[in-house]
Amino acid sequence: MAADRDQILETIQRYVDLVGKGAADEILALYADGATVEDPVGSEVRTTPESIREFYASIEPLEQESRLVSARIADGQAAFLFELVTRVGDQTYTLAPIDVMTFDDDARITSMRAFWSNDDMQVG
Amino acid sequence: MAADRDQILETIQRYVDLVGKGAADEILALYADGATVEDPVGSEVRTTPESIREFYASIEPLEQESRLVSARIADGQAAFLFELVTRVGDQTYTLAPIDVMTFDDDARITSMRAFWSNDDMQVG
Repeated sequence: MAADRDQILETIQRYVDLVGKGAADEILALYADGATVEDPVGSEVRTTPESIREFYASIEPLEQESRLVSARIADGQAAFLFELVTRVGDQTYTLAPIDVMTFDDDARITSMRAFWSNDDMQVG
Repeated sequence: MAADRDQILETIQRYVDLVGKGAADEILALYADGATVEDPVGSEVRTTPESIREFYASIEPLEQESRLVSARIADGQAAFLFELVTRVGDQTYTLAPIDVMTFDDDARITSMRAFWSNDDMQVG
C-alpha cells in the first residue's frame, strides 16, 4: 500500500530538518535502496548510496538553518518549497528550492529532484 | 536551443494570470503540440488538445483570482507555487498548488503536473 499523506509529510519535515542540521548519514537513511538524486535538476543523477551520501556530506560542515515553507502531496508523490539559510561569517546565503520527491510504501524517498539555480540565491 | 530562464518565467506568469482569468483558449495556446497535463498528479494524463482545453474550460465560468508565489527554473524545466482563490457567493476557496512543467525551445509548455489534494483547500 502506498505511503499515506501524513507519513510522507513526516519524511519531508525530517528531510528539511536534517538538511539544516547537515547530518549526511541520517539523511541517507531517509532514502530507499536504489534511490536517485538530481540536485539541481539538469545535473548528473546520483544513483548510488555512496554518491548520495557524498552530496549531503559536502554541506555537512556548513552552518545552516532550514525551514519547510509549503508542501503538496498527491498520489504518494510530493513537491515542496523549503528555505535553506547558510551563514559564512557575517554573510547569509538564502536559497529556497522546490524539491520533487517520490516515495516507497514506507515513505522512504525513491527519487528527489531539486529545482533551483544560482539566480535564486539571495545574499544578505 | 533550450528556452532561457526569462522566457520560461514569462510563460509561467502568463499561465498563472490566464488560469485566474479563466481563458481556456489562451491557456491552450501556451501549450506545445503533443503536450500532456496531469492535474492533480495521479489523475489520468490528458494527451490531446481537446482534453486539455476541456480541463481549463471547466474552470472558465468560475470567479477566480490567481497569484504566482514562487518559481524555480532549472535546466529548462520549472516548479512553481501559485495561489488560486475562487469566490462562490460569500465563500472563498483557496488552493495553492505546486506545478511542475517542462518546455520546448520556444518556452511553450510540453508537460504539466500539478501537486495538490483536497486536503490543501482552504475554505474561508
